[in-house]
Amino acid sequence: MSQLANTPEPPYYAVIFASSRHDTDEPAYQDTAARMMELAARQPGFLGVDSARSDALGITVSYWQDENAIKAWKHQVEHTEARRMGRENWYREFSLRVARVERAYGLQGDD
Amino acid sequence: MSQLANTPEPPYYAVIFASSRHDTDEPAYQDTAARMMELAARQPGFLGVDSARSDALGITVSYWQDENAIKAWKHQVEHTEARRMGRENWYREFSLRVARVERAYGLQGDD
Repeated sequence: MSQLANTPEPPYYAVIFASSRHDTDEPAYQDTAARMMELAARQPGFLGVDSARSDALGITVSYWQDENAIKAWKHQVEHTEARRMGRENWYREFSLRVARVERAYGLQGDD
Repeated sequence: MSQLANTPEPPYYAVIFASSRHDTDEPAYQDTAARMMELAARQPGFLGVDSARSDALGITVSYWQDENAIKAWKHQVEHTEARRMGRENWYREFSLRVARVERAYGLQGDD
């Protein structure tokens, strides 16, 4: 099975979240990150997510049908609280970019 | 110093490259990946890059001034050869998305 997000034909939207974290409060961060993945997947207009983390730096790209879907997820209650925790406790720095995916291609595994 | 790409105000473009690799030929892959980072940074219109790799999955997001800058990098000679090697030898699967960054914000570190 593919490990990569399986999105429809463009156009759609990507939220590119890059971050580096303080190395404190790891279990709480991990629990919250897992919970947010679970909740995001239930949001209307969610199309998929790709996520990777090296020691210093994490990147999560989530894919959404349109801007309204992104807005609704931003204001989802538990997510709003998790974002506050992130800003105050977990992230040393982050960048968030909202981008309109215009074209896409790939190579698929042999599974 | 920030570990994250420091890009100008939108609009600009992002190339979102997500991949999973075969676990063969690691030194050649690492050398080529480092060389490509070095070459990309010299291309006209290159704005920055964020990259993270977990065991299974890597994500590299590079930022570019416009579509022409992306096209020129795609056809850069050494990069074309590296892309061929990637498709034939290194990647089990990948996805590449070209997206127009419309808005961006972030949290900056204290240093």
